[in-house]
Amino acid sequence: MTQRVYNFSPGPAVLPLPVMEAAQRDLLALPGIGISPLEISHRHKWFDGVLADTKGTLRELLGIPQNYQIVFLQGGASTQFSMVPMNFLRGTNLPADFVVTGAWGGKAVAEAQREGTVNVAWDGKATNYDRLPAANDVKLSPQAAYVHITSNETIQGVQFPANPTFGAAPLISDLSSDFLCRPVDVGQYGMIYACAQKNAGISSVTIAIIRDDLLERGAKNLPTMFDFRTHVKNDSVYNTPPVFAIYVFQLILQWIKNDIGGLAKMAAHNAAKCKLLYDVLDGEFYQGHAQPNCRSTMNVTFRMKEELEKPFIKGAEQLQLMELKGHRSVGGMRASIYNAMPIEGVKILSEYMQDFRKKNG
Amino acid sequence: MTQRVYNFSPGPAVLPLPVMEAAQRDLLALPGIGISPLEISHRHKWFDGVLADTKGTLRELLGIPQNYQIVFLQGGASTQFSMVPMNFLRGTNLPADFVVTGAWGGKAVAEAQREGTVNVAWDGKATNYDRLPAANDVKLSPQAAYVHITSNETIQGVQFPANPTFGAAPLISDLSSDFLCRPVDVGQYGMIYACAQKNAGISSVTIAIIRDDLLERGAKNLPTMFDFRTHVKNDSVYNTPPVFAIYVFQLILQWIKNDIGGLAKMAAHNAAKCKLLYDVLDGEFYQGHAQPNCRSTMNVTFRMKEELEKPFIKGAEQLQLMELKGHRSVGGMRASIYNAMPIEGVKILSEYMQDFRKKNG
Repeated sequence: MTQRVYNFSPGPAVLPLPVMEAAQRDLLALPGIGISPLEISHRHKWFDGVLADTKGTLRELLGIPQNYQIVFLQGGASTQFSMVPMNFLRGTNLPADFVVTGAWGGKAVAEAQREGTVNVAWDGKATNYDRLPAANDVKLSPQAAYVHITSNETIQGVQFPANPTFGAAPLISDLSSDFLCRPVDVGQYGMIYACAQKNAGISSVTIAIIRDDLLERGAKNLPTMFDFRTHVKNDSVYNTPPVFAIYVFQLILQWIKNDIGGLAKMAAHNAAKCKLLYDVLDGEFYQGHAQPNCRSTMNVTFRMKEELEKPFIKGAEQLQLMELKGHRSVGGMRASIYNAMPIEGVKILSEYMQDFRKKNG
Repeated sequence: MTQRVYNFSPGPAVLPLPVMEAAQRDLLALPGIGISPLEISHRHKWFDGVLADTKGTLRELLGIPQNYQIVFLQGGASTQFSMVPMNFLRGTNLPADFVVTGAWGGKAVAEAQREGTVNVAWDGKATNYDRLPAANDVKLSPQAAYVHITSNETIQGVQFPANPTFGAAPLISDLSSDFLCRPVDVGQYGMIYACAQKNAGISSVTIAIIRDDLLERGAKNLPTMFDFRTHVKNDSVYNTPPVFAIYVFQLILQWIKNDIGGLAKMAAHNAAKCKLLYDVLDGEFYQGHAQPNCRSTMNVTFRMKEELEKPFIKGAEQLQLMELKGHRSVGGMRASIYNAMPIEGVKILSEYMQDFRKKNG
C-alpha cells in the first residue's frame, strides 16, 4: 500500500481511516451474506438494516425531533438549489429570503429565482464574503416562504454559528460543508440539507432533514423524483438509492458515535484543530480572509505575498501536505480540515507555516 | 472472507470480481497519490484521467460517433424520466411517442405527461407485457419531438433488438438494464441513457449519450442541474460527480475491453448464458413469461405451479443461488444474469431447474 498523504481538499475530502478499512474488509462479500456492498440490492434485508441504523444513529447524534423526516437523495447541494424552491417557493406567492455569505449561497439564489420571488436579505459581496451580516443589516421580508442560508462557505471560509435565528419563517440551511462538525439544534430549522462528500462520506448521496409541516405545504404536481414527499413516503427507496454511499455514511456515523464520542467531542476536536492554524495567522505575513468572529472551523483561508505561494505549496507537498491551493476568487491558501482530518496533519501544517514564515519573513 | 454467492438480483447486481478486487486493492490509497478513490477530489488530475479514459473506452467499445456527447449524471433512470421531457419535449408543441413494453416504460410516460403531450404509440399491458409490438401496431405521430423506448424491461424480461427503428423522429432509449450487453449502433439513436447498477457498476451514476443536434434544440431556462447542456459544457464536473462510481465504471469498461474482448464477445457470452435457462423452459412445468422472440438476455422470467415456488427458492438458496424471486406483477421467478454473472452460476441454476423438475414434475 502507498503511504497516505494529508489531503486538505475542500471536497471530496479525507475520510476516517477506520471507515475505509471497514469498507475495504467487506468489499468482496459481506459476512454471512456473500454479496458485496457494491452489488447488493436496495431491497435486500441487509440494506433495510443499514437504512434503519443510519437514520437511527443520525437521529440520536443530532437529536432530531420526531416531526422531522430524514431522506437520502442524489445530485448534491446543486440539485437542492433547485429542489428546495420547487417544493417550497413555487406557487406560494411569497418571497424567499436569502442571506448570501459566499459563492454557494449565490448559486442557490440563481436557481430559486426560476421558481418565484427571491429577496436577497443580505449579500456580503462588497467585502468579498469575508464576514457574516450584523443583525440589523439583514432585511427580511415581512412574510417569507422561507429563509435560506449557507451554514459554511467553503471558498471563503465563513461559518455561521450552529443555531442562527432569522425571524419567523422556516429556516433552510445548506450544511454541506459543516454537517456533523458540531451539535445543531435541528428544531430551530425548517430543513437542513448536506451533500456527503465533506463530513458524511463519498459524493453521490445528499442527506435532507425536513420538518413535517413544511413537507405538507410543499408544491403539488412536481416531477416525482423532485418532490421530497416521494422520498419520505418511500423511505428513500422509491428508486435505487446510492446504496454504497449510504453504507459509508452509516460507517461514518458509527465512527462519530463510538470512536469520537458524539458531536460535542467532534466539535472540540475541530476547535482544537483550527486553532492550530488560526493562531499562526498574524495579519502580516499570513492574512486570514474571513473576519475572526466568523472564521470557519472547516476551511481555513489565508493569503501571503503572491510570489511566496508557489514555494509555499512546493514545500508543503514535500511534507505530504496536499491540496492547499485556495480558490481563485479568494487567492492564497485554503486548508480544509473536516472531521476526518487527523490533528497530526494539522500540527505538521501549523509547524510548516511557522517555519516557512521564519525563512521568508 | 465470506464465500461469495450467485446473486441473481435485478439490480443493484453482481459485479465482475476482478473489478472489485482492483477497487479493494487501492481503496485506502491510490498508488503514487496516497489518497483513496473514496476521498479524491473531482478536480484532481487523477480524476481528469479517469474521466478521459472512461469516455474514451466507452466511445471505443460502442463506436460512439463524434457528434454524440457523453455525460455522467445522478438520480438513475427515474430522474431521466423527467429530465428527458424537460429538455426535449417542453415547449416544442409536438407530441412525444412512447412505446411501452413494461413497467419502466409506463413510469417514463407518467413523468413525460407533466411536460407536454404524450402519444402512447403502443402499450403491451393487455398481455401483461409479454411481447414486443408488431411493426404495424405501433401508431407513431406524423411529427414527434422524439420516440421513447425501454430497451430491456427487467420485470417482464422483454428486450428489443439492439437497433430497432421507429420512423424519423429521434429515438431515445432507456438502456438501464441492457447497456453494454451487446454492440449497439449508437448512430441510430438520438439519445441513450442507462443507470449503472446493472452492467455499468454501482448505483449513483447514470450515463447519457446525446446527439449534438438534440442538445442544441433543448428547452431553455431549465434549472441548471436538469439541463443536459450544463453537464456537456462542464464535462460532467459542473458540480461534484459521483467520483467513485465513475471510477468503478472505468474498471468495468476495462474488464469488458481487456478481459472479455469487447462487446461482440460480451454478447456471445450473454447468449450462451441465457440459452442455458431458456432451453429448460418447456411451457409446461416451467412457463416463460416473455414470448420466445423477444426474450431478454438479461432477465429470464418464468413461472411454475405456485405451491412449488417456495420449495424452489429454498432449494436454490441451499446451492447459493440467491435473489431469484420474481416481481409480484409477473409472479414466479426471475433470474437476472447481467454481464458479470459467471456462466458457472447459470449452469448450476440450469441443472438445479432440471433436477427440481424431475423431483416435482
